[in-house]
Amino acid sequence: MINKNLIDLEALSVEQIDKLVRKARKIMQNPADFRHACDGKILATLFYEPSTRTQMSFQTAMLKLGGRTIGFDNPMNSSVAKGESLKDTISVISGYADVIAIRHPVEGTAMAASLYSEVPLINCGDGGHLHPTQTLTDIVTLSCEKGRLDHMKIGVCGDLLNGRTVHSLIKTLAKYEGNSFVLISTKELSVPLYIIDILEKNNCAYEISHSLSDAIGDLDVLYMTRIQRERFGSPEEYEAQKYVFVLDREKLDKAREDMIILHPLPRVNEITVDIDDDPRALYFKQAQYGMYGRMALILTLLQDEDFLIPSRETETSLHRCSNPKCVTQSEAYLPNLSYRKLGMQMCDFCDKRID
Amino acid sequence: MINKNLIDLEALSVEQIDKLVRKARKIMQNPADFRHACDGKILATLFYEPSTRTQMSFQTAMLKLGGRTIGFDNPMNSSVAKGESLKDTISVISGYADVIAIRHPVEGTAMAASLYSEVPLINCGDGGHLHPTQTLTDIVTLSCEKGRLDHMKIGVCGDLLNGRTVHSLIKTLAKYEGNSFVLISTKELSVPLYIIDILEKNNCAYEISHSLSDAIGDLDVLYMTRIQRERFGSPEEYEAQKYVFVLDREKLDKAREDMIILHPLPRVNEITVDIDDDPRALYFKQAQYGMYGRMALILTLLQDEDFLIPSRETETSLHRCSNPKCVTQSEAYLPNLSYRKLGMQMCDFCDKRID
Amino acid sequence: MINKNLIDLEALSVEQIDKLVRKARKIMQNPADFRHACDGKILATLFYEPSTRTQMSFQTAMLKLGGRTIGFDNPMNSSVAKGESLKDTISVISGYADVIAIRHPVEGTAMAASLYSEVPLINCGDGGHLHPTQTLTDIVTLSCEKGRLDHMKIGVCGDLLNGRTVHSLIKTLAKYEGNSFVLISTKELSVPLYIIDILEKNNCAYEISHSLSDAIGDLDVLYMTRIQRERFGSPEEYEAQKYVFVLDREKLDKAREDMIILHPLPRVNEITVDIDDDPRALYFKQAQYGMYGRMALILTLLQDEDFLIPSRETETSLHRCSNPKCVTQSEAYLPNLSYRKLGMQMCDFCDKRID
Repeated sequence: MINKNLIDLEALSVEQIDKLVRKARKIMQNPADFRHACDGKILATLFYEPSTRTQMSFQTAMLKLGGRTIGFDNPMNSSVAKGESLKDTISVISGYADVIAIRHPVEGTAMAASLYSEVPLINCGDGGHLHPTQTLTDIVTLSCEKGRLDHMKIGVCGDLLNGRTVHSLIKTLAKYEGNSFVLISTKELSVPLYIIDILEKNNCAYEISHSLSDAIGDLDVLYMTRIQRERFGSPEEYEAQKYVFVLDREKLDKAREDMIILHPLPRVNEITVDIDDDPRALYFKQAQYGMYGRMALILTLLQDEDFLIPSRETETSLHRCSNPKCVTQSEAYLPNLSYRKLGMQMCDFCDKRID
Repeated sequence: MINKNLIDLEALSVEQIDKLVRKARKIMQNPADFRHACDGKILATLFYEPSTRTQMSFQTAMLKLGGRTIGFDNPMNSSVAKGESLKDTISVISGYADVIAIRHPVEGTAMAASLYSEVPLINCGDGGHLHPTQTLTDIVTLSCEKGRLDHMKIGVCGDLLNGRTVHSLIKTLAKYEGNSFVLISTKELSVPLYIIDILEKNNCAYEISHSLSDAIGDLDVLYMTRIQRERFGSPEEYEAQKYVFVLDREKLDKAREDMIILHPLPRVNEITVDIDDDPRALYFKQAQYGMYGRMALILTLLQDEDFLIPSRETETSLHRCSNPKCVTQSEAYLPNLSYRKLGMQMCDFCDKRID
Repeated sequence: MINKNLIDLEALSVEQIDKLVRKARKIMQNPADFRHACDGKILATLFYEPSTRTQMSFQTAMLKLGGRTIGFDNPMNSSVAKGESLKDTISVISGYADVIAIRHPVEGTAMAASLYSEVPLINCGDGGHLHPTQTLTDIVTLSCEKGRLDHMKIGVCGDLLNGRTVHSLIKTLAKYEGNSFVLISTKELSVPLYIIDILEKNNCAYEISHSLSDAIGDLDVLYMTRIQRERFGSPEEYEAQKYVFVLDREKLDKAREDMIILHPLPRVNEITVDIDDDPRALYFKQAQYGMYGRMALILTLLQDEDFLIPSRETETSLHRCSNPKCVTQSEAYLPNLSYRKLGMQMCDFCDKRID
């Protein structure tokens, strides 16, 4: 089965990702050509938890294509969020809108919503699970700023254990030839083993580092993320290490002139403000690339009839997913959809193992 | 006196309702012809209580006509709602917008607002009192799906005592020839006597039923609404009867093939989810018909100079309305407007008797 | 240095104010000519505290120019407001939008935001500090209704000590020839001394009055504002004086036929409702003039290349501003910018003296 929903960037082929990136670049070069591309079309932004920047990025993207937007950002005040099933809300909204962008704190919600949508649906974040348009943002930025998506040495720094944006970026860039990674974090916050598996399966070189200062010297790209204080092993470790993973002027002076710095934002204090004006600091421009990536995505889902995303082969499992954060826990009518991976049965909504 | 405000569907003639329905069907058939019908016009949606679906329906309707929208949905955060009189808010907003859609938890607020609006004003619900565009939604759906508004046998099921949508639907359909009703509810939740009066005055046949299962067999239309648990006479009655008024596969199997199922939404559990894919289940499509009905309404109020709604003849009564839910309680400057009905003096805002 | 940001109306020359007023009048006369003036442009309304009327006025202004809007009005739910610096938010948003309108409860925030914006930025109110588009509203109203901005006798009534709209209006009108003022308030709520200084420097005649009734007779303009009950010296004074500064029918009867009444709104009870229909009562029409003033402002900032606003000459002071309400207290990366005035060092953000 095929569909027009972007739930997980993993479902796209390299060719499809490249197509989106090329479209984003084309829009960027001639925005006026696309000013009426979505005239008369409506995007619904259903934000069950606030994410002002992501929502404004999608709204701006649609407006710059000539389309219009409806939606909510205010779950507590919204009658939609009160007592109505996700299925019913999506069934109604997909009668109003031409494309839906959904964000929800519960894992698997976008996949669940896509089962009932009559129109293309985009995952704007489902709990700590997936956020594919952030990775699309990163990819568009790399393509535009480095001129390629392959043969790069990428440092990823921060909380590599919990950072979904980092995992998704590694999974995507591992598909391109010649990329290598430097994984910079505390020991406790190293990448999960399944990410190492993916790197090895794709023959990606990687190094592990515990010092940004040591690692920064020969990177093409530095992807910074936040480490929360409470993620350190102990208060003592936090005090000892708190500056080790902060990018400041001193560390940046060791970097190459053509290294670029990315960050998914919001930043807290992991990049000092005095670096913002350095030409290598691209995190604000990256947000703008994200808007162009979203324009490309909306346009492609609405107009490119050949852009079809394959659905996973699923079966109905006997057991319900037991992940307490999974959408199947709160939306009782959902089927027990699962798929096979390495001999295990995985929940089709939250991608956790079903026993 | 005449006006361009839709406060109560009762104020429209059958010809006017038919005109709106015809216009809605015309838009549905050729939406592209109307894509610029309201270019440059602005709809203000003033939602003093959240009703996300109604608000999105109005916004979508205006956007699909080429117009634009402003408004709020967030009464607690809104400076408009804080300390400013309804009169002042409406006086200012009607200087910005070309048409106003207002929802408010207090009865009679739409009528009160219309006194101070320089532009057409639409009631999107004023407490438990009136919600005319829901009935317009129902009427457009029936017209499109049954091909007529007369000679139907309509079952209404659920809380018939408190359901304003049911009352308004019965009052409207009673004006068309040959309609009959089956009133399906618990004894405690039967329709109010004044609705029986209306049915009898209009020579509408009606039956009373306490079992959806018994009644469903020869209906053209089944209009489902919710019964809240606390509306049953006692917890024992709730336990004994809780499934009697739930539409499930078993009961639906007794219905005719061409019966259609409507519901004003949101649904809770009075229709089981396994019925949603039955071709007779039209409640999601009904929401879409509602959007077309609202497009027809906005367009007609803005552009059809002959579409004039007569105001009731009112007088100023000595006594203020004593209904604690009436807008006259909170907005001190409002006059004591009343009208005569069956020899009684009725409040022009909330339609309750003034003594 | 020059910029395209409207932070303080004081930064504009009389010629620039006149240009905005003329533009507003031109738009008012031929709105259709401007319906596509901002096609494809986006206004971001960043409202960190709710001000529904101001926000809707800006949104309407942009929509009537053919542009579109994004933004938020909901600081508590907004991820932008949570933990992200003003600098980062503005850096991102100015990559999406063509012009920014910002409101914030903290003094100096608009000035601070303008340092990091790539696009023109408009101050929509920063705490009790400045609100330049309210004064623009007043000026457009006066120009349209009196046909001039000079040789008027203007009464300002209410809380003259704390009312920023009154101060800003006096400062602006003092620049035009032949204006005189009647300052009507309790003794405790008289205008601050620096306003008297400005009047005297500009050779403006002024009188002080403690009675609206006595003063109203020979005014061209009466500008009403609210006195809060708690601003009176004592409960006894409140009781004794509460009606002295309320405009009612009796006092209005002493006014000239061509006097006009303005009010920045929201009104509480300082103007009785029975006056609203008097042709001299222009406060609701004033809100509409404000919308045209904002249209003129947006259009001018986006399109008039000659409309450049001079920045103050600043230096970096040794001491940080100690005003607890100043934006420099919460946004640590801001420089200690100051300017000289009468030999004192003033904070460039909040305009308070730095010691």
